[in-house]
Amino acid sequence: MPETISPASNDRAVLLIDCPDQKGLVARVAGLLYEQGANILHADQHQDHELGLFFMRVEWAIDDSSSDIPDFTRAFTPLAEELHMRWQLRRLNRKPRIALFCSQYLHCIADLLHRVSAGELACEIAVIVSNHREVEKLAAFHGIRFEYIPVTAETRTEAEARQLMLLEESGVELVVLARYMQIVTEDFVTHYPAAIINVHHSFLPAFIGARPYHAAHARGVKLIGATSHYVTSVLDDGPIIEQDVARISHRDQVEDLVARGRDLERIVLSRAVRWHLEHRILCYGNKTVVFD
Amino acid sequence: MPETISPASNDRAVLLIDCPDQKGLVARVAGLLYEQGANILHADQHQDHELGLFFMRVEWAIDDSSSDIPDFTRAFTPLAEELHMRWQLRRLNRKPRIALFCSQYLHCIADLLHRVSAGELACEIAVIVSNHREVEKLAAFHGIRFEYIPVTAETRTEAEARQLMLLEESGVELVVLARYMQIVTEDFVTHYPAAIINVHHSFLPAFIGARPYHAAHARGVKLIGATSHYVTSVLDDGPIIEQDVARISHRDQVEDLVARGRDLERIVLSRAVRWHLEHRILCYGNKTVVFD
Amino acid sequence: MPETISPASNDRAVLLIDCPDQKGLVARVAGLLYEQGANILHADQHQDHELGLFFMRVEWAIDDSSSDIPDFTRAFTPLAEELHMRWQLRRLNRKPRIALFCSQYLHCIADLLHRVSAGELACEIAVIVSNHREVEKLAAFHGIRFEYIPVTAETRTEAEARQLMLLEESGVELVVLARYMQIVTEDFVTHYPAAIINVHHSFLPAFIGARPYHAAHARGVKLIGATSHYVTSVLDDGPIIEQDVARISHRDQVEDLVARGRDLERIVLSRAVRWHLEHRILCYGNKTVVFD
Amino acid sequence: MPETISPASNDRAVLLIDCPDQKGLVARVAGLLYEQGANILHADQHQDHELGLFFMRVEWAIDDSSSDIPDFTRAFTPLAEELHMRWQLRRLNRKPRIALFCSQYLHCIADLLHRVSAGELACEIAVIVSNHREVEKLAAFHGIRFEYIPVTAETRTEAEARQLMLLEESGVELVVLARYMQIVTEDFVTHYPAAIINVHHSFLPAFIGARPYHAAHARGVKLIGATSHYVTSVLDDGPIIEQDVARISHRDQVEDLVARGRDLERIVLSRAVRWHLEHRILCYGNKTVVFD
Repeated sequence: MPETISPASNDRAVLLIDCPDQKGLVARVAGLLYEQGANILHADQHQDHELGLFFMRVEWAIDDSSSDIPDFTRAFTPLAEELHMRWQLRRLNRKPRIALFCSQYLHCIADLLHRVSAGELACEIAVIVSNHREVEKLAAFHGIRFEYIPVTAETRTEAEARQLMLLEESGVELVVLARYMQIVTEDFVTHYPAAIINVHHSFLPAFIGARPYHAAHARGVKLIGATSHYVTSVLDDGPIIEQDVARISHRDQVEDLVARGRDLERIVLSRAVRWHLEHRILCYGNKTVVFD
Repeated sequence: MPETISPASNDRAVLLIDCPDQKGLVARVAGLLYEQGANILHADQHQDHELGLFFMRVEWAIDDSSSDIPDFTRAFTPLAEELHMRWQLRRLNRKPRIALFCSQYLHCIADLLHRVSAGELACEIAVIVSNHREVEKLAAFHGIRFEYIPVTAETRTEAEARQLMLLEESGVELVVLARYMQIVTEDFVTHYPAAIINVHHSFLPAFIGARPYHAAHARGVKLIGATSHYVTSVLDDGPIIEQDVARISHRDQVEDLVARGRDLERIVLSRAVRWHLEHRILCYGNKTVVFD
Repeated sequence: MPETISPASNDRAVLLIDCPDQKGLVARVAGLLYEQGANILHADQHQDHELGLFFMRVEWAIDDSSSDIPDFTRAFTPLAEELHMRWQLRRLNRKPRIALFCSQYLHCIADLLHRVSAGELACEIAVIVSNHREVEKLAAFHGIRFEYIPVTAETRTEAEARQLMLLEESGVELVVLARYMQIVTEDFVTHYPAAIINVHHSFLPAFIGARPYHAAHARGVKLIGATSHYVTSVLDDGPIIEQDVARISHRDQVEDLVARGRDLERIVLSRAVRWHLEHRILCYGNKTVVFD
Repeated sequence: MPETISPASNDRAVLLIDCPDQKGLVARVAGLLYEQGANILHADQHQDHELGLFFMRVEWAIDDSSSDIPDFTRAFTPLAEELHMRWQLRRLNRKPRIALFCSQYLHCIADLLHRVSAGELACEIAVIVSNHREVEKLAAFHGIRFEYIPVTAETRTEAEARQLMLLEESGVELVVLARYMQIVTEDFVTHYPAAIINVHHSFLPAFIGARPYHAAHARGVKLIGATSHYVTSVLDDGPIIEQDVARISHRDQVEDLVARGRDLERIVLSRAVRWHLEHRILCYGNKTVVFD
């Protein structure tokens, strides 16, 4: 194995691209990286032939102290413009700041907090926001700022203004709704496009809206599901990131579905957050490309 | 192991019960079987506490030549009446006669035919009905009567009349719609309550109706599903018997979903047919109890 | 729904039976419960025809303040003796005291602690034992006694003596090895027959012993698994309670397997503990019956 | 969508590469394809950082009548030599000739035959070989040559010689052992390296050898599995292509495991054959890379 190819390098760069498809895209991006001396560790492409779109994720080793990123940016910008690319360039060592929103159910947020503390999720939790106080003790244990912001239909506008100010002052780049049982308005969503992740406790698009486990029980389904997705202005309709299901039977009552579902919710939400933090997700139309 | 307890008996009886729940139901049914000298091989109960309903399936060894069944029936009838039971008593050795309906896609029907010929499904296939001719050769290979009955919106009434006559003269007790791509009218359904099994190529109640794989692709789901259910007069709304899912990704186009889905359809349909033939399914409301 | 059949009773009794199979077992047990006025909420039986064994679990409503349990015991004992039954009678409201053992990896124990605090697992955690100090802070957060007991090959006998004394003085009925990375001796196991639950990070019997994820990666399997089982004196050989798997690909390195596996371990261990606490498991030979 | 990028082209070329990893591999391969005017439809790479190996699969549109393939080969050969590549270049429209081997159980071979006839598997079945006669009728129905070659320990050498001659004269490139219950010798394997696919009815490496469902039942596992793999000279030890599992319970006897397992076997074997035919699999060491 050549000396130069070490996955144990200090840091990595991730380039995410989407653009109109045309011949030579892989060749030109890979060629430019080769000229720059980049050691590609992972590269993945996807083409949507129906829509004529091209998607790419490239990950390569960089040196923390180097000028790799600005050098690459300078070299890449003209190519990106020529090929009408939308692109993002990220360093994996730089941990994004995130906010966790929850209500009274703590299973998802407790799971995320454990994963962050165990090093499974590379991020800084800037703040925990809740319209209930149940999470306060847990936030304190993890040494994370907690903000109690109650919300009613009447105070929603005001509460969201407070939330947005808080997010801005905390430098938050990703909002995770970890069973946050409040509607989020279109205005709020506009501030964080493709940067609010929600978990819905059904296999979307089945059982949109409130009380999906009750609806699943009433319909007599044999599997229940959970879905993580980016939040858009339409309820439970944003681009789906991950879904999973569990088998149930006639013996399971609604409360059993709720209990089984908690494990699904934890899994699909934590996967979505991890993939977002590893810059593996591209949104287009109302769908996601998840590079694995 | 006592002499008397042999699962290798000649035949088995299956008793399926549903009735209003009350104390002592298990004791009284099991007690009566004990008095009759029955050797219970499997017994399973279920209570729906919300609706106050009781469901039971009991399987015991009987002797082919004996008067077990009429004797049991005589003894059981007064109890059943006292406790307001709906009940069915079946012998497992008696193979029900079934009809298979299909259109031009043969994966489900080919699978069912193989399973019957391999002894996996205990039934006699009385007739294969199709509005296409693709299945004719396969029917001939298996030595099964084939009836070509074309259907259009205009001829549906007439075609269904022909189908119903055919089913009646063939002594059919179960109709399996193995990707039969025609609407079945309420009148037709009325003749076979809880005795028509359909496979729908989605995870119901998501993607009801036509072209569910296209709808799933458009929505960007991460799992696709298939559902087997009893047919009622409302499209894709009958009691669900079985469901299963498969993981897909952004790389999968509609044709990939169709291909992946075929395996799901085969599995969920063949399980539903097997459970029905083994008298494991009880319908109530719009749901099923499946005793496993 | 009759007045008398209420699942919302104060408490429930669970009776677990195994005995040689013979005619009339269900009738006689159900009959006795009926005479005692018991309102059966769930009943499940299983027969192993090869070995001629009968297994039963019955759950019925009882009144906290009543003499239900001693009355039933008095009435049941002669029957149990006559039929050579091994049996256990439990009240679901009585929470067993359990001990959690772990080493430096905290994902399983953090998960169990969250589930207990959220009411998912009905038990009292008497003590947390570890040969490392990583868990100490978490134990303090949950207000649970923590005992640091380092173990080496030389000090194992002494350490286990200390552990056993601790378990006895704490009234522990179930020991959960939540990624406890130490061998447990035959002597230790003898004190808790079918009452020590371990999680092994492979799909047993594949990859017994140390570093199963490394072994799975070396073999190039396409699924990894985790197994929860009762501990016996033979390493990774006790009766299996639950198993689950996750799909991996050639892209996954050992560290990815470890990360994916953590979710499996949490799930299979927490299910095993829950089923044990709900008195759903019977061991026989080297297997389990898990009544669901 | 540009005119030039059409997935509906007449044919496609697939290039499979493995070589020592080094910088610029993607750039140089993609660059050469760009120079040749190739329209890349799919490209996927994988690096094994431990072993310093690079794997690539590229699929592009070609014109049936053109000189694309020889032109590309001429241009690619010097690069391949310089970079020490092992490579294969295939046209997807060219259907490989395959042989199916089976014994008395027909579920796998019936499934494969249906899939080939339905267009799911792009190949020509040159011959069906069996040491039993059960498959003869099915072969006749599909119009495929059938050769009955009985095998005993004494006649194995002779029988394999006959089989090899048959395979050679039929131009067979892939041998599929669809529940062929005979040992295949090292000599036989040597003739078809990475070109004999077997299905083993367990989750390898658990339950190697004969009667794996009996072994699984004896061990009391909660999931059963099936594995498709390339055959090497060591029994059940070749590179794993695909695995899948199904949940079982204490209620399932060995015959239930056998029945459940049949569905797994069909699925994992048919996937392996499809991936092989689509040139998605690369073997290295004792593992596979499966490009999806």
